[in-house]
Amino acid sequence: MISHLAIIGVGLIGGSLGLAVRKHKVARHVLGIGRHTANLQKAQNLGAIDDYSTDLAALKDAQVVVVCTPVETIPELLSQAAPHISPGTLITDVGSTKEKLVKAVSKQLRPLKRQCEFIGSHPMAGREKASVDHAVADLFEQRAAIVTPTEKSSEENVERVAELWSSVGSKVHFMSPREHDALVATTSHVPHLIASMLAAATPEEVLSLVGTGWLDTTRIAAGDVELWRQILTQNRQHVLTSLARFEKVFQTIRVALEKEHDSKLVRLLEEGKRKRDSVGS
Amino acid sequence: MISHLAIIGVGLIGGSLGLAVRKHKVARHVLGIGRHTANLQKAQNLGAIDDYSTDLAALKDAQVVVVCTPVETIPELLSQAAPHISPGTLITDVGSTKEKLVKAVSKQLRPLKRQCEFIGSHPMAGREKASVDHAVADLFEQRAAIVTPTEKSSEENVERVAELWSSVGSKVHFMSPREHDALVATTSHVPHLIASMLAAATPEEVLSLVGTGWLDTTRIAAGDVELWRQILTQNRQHVLTSLARFEKVFQTIRVALEKEHDSKLVRLLEEGKRKRDSVGS
Repeated sequence: MISHLAIIGVGLIGGSLGLAVRKHKVARHVLGIGRHTANLQKAQNLGAIDDYSTDLAALKDAQVVVVCTPVETIPELLSQAAPHISPGTLITDVGSTKEKLVKAVSKQLRPLKRQCEFIGSHPMAGREKASVDHAVADLFEQRAAIVTPTEKSSEENVERVAELWSSVGSKVHFMSPREHDALVATTSHVPHLIASMLAAATPEEVLSLVGTGWLDTTRIAAGDVELWRQILTQNRQHVLTSLARFEKVFQTIRVALEKEHDSKLVRLLEEGKRKRDSVGS
Repeated sequence: MISHLAIIGVGLIGGSLGLAVRKHKVARHVLGIGRHTANLQKAQNLGAIDDYSTDLAALKDAQVVVVCTPVETIPELLSQAAPHISPGTLITDVGSTKEKLVKAVSKQLRPLKRQCEFIGSHPMAGREKASVDHAVADLFEQRAAIVTPTEKSSEENVERVAELWSSVGSKVHFMSPREHDALVATTSHVPHLIASMLAAATPEEVLSLVGTGWLDTTRIAAGDVELWRQILTQNRQHVLTSLARFEKVFQTIRVALEKEHDSKLVRLLEEGKRKRDSVGS
């Protein structure tokens, strides 16, 4: 059991992690760190954290620190936190992109490298609403959590991060930061971008007449704009590669529709259905 | 109250209509017509219909007939049904496209035109599973139902069809078959096609690692292939027009990402979020 766990940034993910960690008794004490007392107080009232502080100095007792802030803020935040973190502390995060982040953080933490270690992770769970009001203890259950060690990571700490996620119900996978970013470009970032495009391309005057298909397909377009700007720009190259794969399918089908090559359309519908059916609801 | 309502084709939509009509006491007797006794028996057991037949001759008592079969089959089916339909019978359908259908049906029914009338309709409700096992009485509640009269339609029968849908909880809209098809290309058919493309473009090896965003965005790709082939090919021109609108947004954003014009990306995310938020969950 972790004696002191600190969560920096108590929104949907941080709050859900707090609820899950307390539910599964993974840590004896959960500290929330944030900028806004009102939000931290709300998280405490919801039972997501035992205690809170707006001061990074409160990190001194933490054995494990999980950074749940938007991905672009993490390196600077850790550089401010570093002086307060005790030797041997394990630091991880929940950011949606890993390659740039892991490089930047390893630079920030270099002065402390024998004393604490950062191992990136990404629980693949979320909802279109980002606030702690939507936090739930089972957010990570049965979801994939990707842990992204580098060649320099200690096996022991990689194992500790993996245990944290499996203890809240996630199925843990390991891959390099680069492999992770290529993966999520396809499984998450391009779907988000396409959903935004589809919503944005819908003329105002038909919005009152959309059906369940439109609602499902565009649901994630309701996500936080600034969060997604960061994700998409941090992962620009992999997103472009994955968009190109989508575009190839798009053009094939557009031409097939135009030329009435309906067997190609049927093959697309079949392949889409087969892949979708293979995954579950 | 309708004394005898007949539903031809008792799957998800026909079955749900039967459940809703019986729940709201819209008809005294609901007859199911289909090809397969096992399915009709199941619908009866579920309480969706009072009685059933595999013989179109059973239509003779019906005041109102609702055809819930795939859209391509409707004209031929109505031509077979016509001799059995009594004078004054009102016929409607639930097909997802209207322009070609309404033209074809009016040809089939011309010999009977003083005796019965077809008014197209399209309840905008559905799920990715097509069988009667998934039928629910509240499928149409709070959903739009579009009624598509032509210049020749009698006002009285247009009103009767509208009443049928509002009595099962739908919000009724009126438009021409052509306006309907342009609308649903954007609100339903293109989202379906995009969902299929996105699912099909996802490499096999990452399917086990998709998140909630991918799951939502591709959900409708699990829909029935033959049903969607019919819809997309019946509505080819409007689908192509709507796809072109999507493609314009797609290309703008792809280029913006490439050139690091991130303000355009932000504007897209904002517009997508604004439109999605305006609609509800």
